[in-house]
Amino acid sequence: MTRPILLVVTPFSQEALVPLQEHFDIVQWQSLPSPEAFCAQHGSEVLVLITNGMAGVPALCRDALANLALIACNGVGHDAIDLDWADARGIRVTNTPDVLSADVADFAMALALAAFRRVPAADRYVRENKWSRLGAFALTRRFWGSKVGIVGLGRIGHLIARRAGAFETQIGYTGRRQQDGVAYAYFPTVLALARWADLLIVATPGGADTHHLVSRAELEALGPEGVLVNVARGSVVNQSALIDCLESGRLGAAALDVFEEEPQVPEAIAHCASTVLSPHIASATVQTRQAMAALVVDNILQHINVKSLISPVN
Amino acid sequence: MTRPILLVVTPFSQEALVPLQEHFDIVQWQSLPSPEAFCAQHGSEVLVLITNGMAGVPALCRDALANLALIACNGVGHDAIDLDWADARGIRVTNTPDVLSADVADFAMALALAAFRRVPAADRYVRENKWSRLGAFALTRRFWGSKVGIVGLGRIGHLIARRAGAFETQIGYTGRRQQDGVAYAYFPTVLALARWADLLIVATPGGADTHHLVSRAELEALGPEGVLVNVARGSVVNQSALIDCLESGRLGAAALDVFEEEPQVPEAIAHCASTVLSPHIASATVQTRQAMAALVVDNILQHINVKSLISPVN
Repeated sequence: MTRPILLVVTPFSQEALVPLQEHFDIVQWQSLPSPEAFCAQHGSEVLVLITNGMAGVPALCRDALANLALIACNGVGHDAIDLDWADARGIRVTNTPDVLSADVADFAMALALAAFRRVPAADRYVRENKWSRLGAFALTRRFWGSKVGIVGLGRIGHLIARRAGAFETQIGYTGRRQQDGVAYAYFPTVLALARWADLLIVATPGGADTHHLVSRAELEALGPEGVLVNVARGSVVNQSALIDCLESGRLGAAALDVFEEEPQVPEAIAHCASTVLSPHIASATVQTRQAMAALVVDNILQHINVKSLISPVN
Repeated sequence: MTRPILLVVTPFSQEALVPLQEHFDIVQWQSLPSPEAFCAQHGSEVLVLITNGMAGVPALCRDALANLALIACNGVGHDAIDLDWADARGIRVTNTPDVLSADVADFAMALALAAFRRVPAADRYVRENKWSRLGAFALTRRFWGSKVGIVGLGRIGHLIARRAGAFETQIGYTGRRQQDGVAYAYFPTVLALARWADLLIVATPGGADTHHLVSRAELEALGPEGVLVNVARGSVVNQSALIDCLESGRLGAAALDVFEEEPQVPEAIAHCASTVLSPHIASATVQTRQAMAALVVDNILQHINVKSLISPVN
């Protein structure tokens, strides 16, 4: 008797998969000698697929997965998963909200403080023995008291606002609509928010709705002393406009956890003195990745046992 | 008619000194061809001296400054200024409290987040193109929800506690005594605080009273997953014990803005993967250094005009 297949598209904890071994044959997409041959032979046996919001469902196997019932996205963003396609095929989609929000908010603050106070550059300065050879490090920007503009006041945005508010800042936000019961200043557009803010933190979902939401006009409005932080998706910021604004000094600094073509980072960004960079790690703590993996697995177990989801997307 | 001399021992804003030019001949210690000759010829004409808490009054000129009336310390810490000597000579001492507290608290948080989330190492990883060559960066420590122990709950410590509290942390502190009206958990010793804490932030004054307050026992109590942040003075932490504990893994990580022999940083610290380093810049923002310089000058003007001080130390 053949068991259904669980296809794991993106790196995932082996330990977390243990409770699923009694229900599925588990296949690692990245270990397949021939993905095409696998799809032709076994595509119809795949019942559940684990992926993330950047990889989605590989185009190569999409048509072959005739009996796919569940896409489990390891992350809150599901922008690469085509929900219209999933709905049309009756495929359920689940993600991992909430468990990663506080880590992402922490990391947004880590990047903001690192950009204002030039933490990585200061670290290099000491390690390269420049302090004793060249004397004092250049003065940096004050963080406390700044105007913090949050693009997308969702779960993560609210946690960023709470954290930033403890640094004697003013908080503003923009989003599709003004939120009831929220005391932060509302701005109807990213442009209006950027004109007001010293620091713009991007915390929206990715996907078509937010593509290049932050572009040249918004970056220029943020200005030569302004700082951009992106912990959302590379697609939300127009990367070539960002490069232009950093190179010309029309934007002060940018701290980026995400990029348009990850893991590729353009040299103009990687070699820029006014950037702080990280390899998409806003939720990448030991504890949170365990909690995310556990939620992925719990969603799959609940789906096969009682046909419902803990955190449904569609 | 000769005017009194203002002797400037440490780097100081030329612009901020302008209001003092009508009252003093201003002499830069570091530009003197022969400090000895200057002391012999003009030591008795020095009425006011500007220094900082690390440099104090140069030993070379101490006896020559027979008419020194005011030592203006550009910073809140005045550990290198001998207050007993000043008191015995009737010399007033002033410093710059308050104006730098929020910047130092910001920077303590910047260092704590940078150490937990490995911000400088992540930045290097992207810049050195390791993300695209080697794949994902190693998972890091979660910051939110941690137990934050503050050594020295003064002006700066309180601002650190307010900031850290917004990250869903628990806050504890130690100091000479438990403070009335403070809800944070009090620990009678640094050792007891270190046993409880995930993160120990040192925010005490320097000087003999706090020398090596954090030593081997405290670092081992903080433990292999524990993080030390020092924004106070290098003298408060036993640096050789710190090196031992980092090298042996008995301490998880350390983020250090201050060192025992600045600007010298031992290679064992500079080359350590579990440190985040900065060149004593916790208060080094453009805005705060301007505010500090203005307060130094205002203290001097108030002293010469009405014989009182805005922020007296003794």
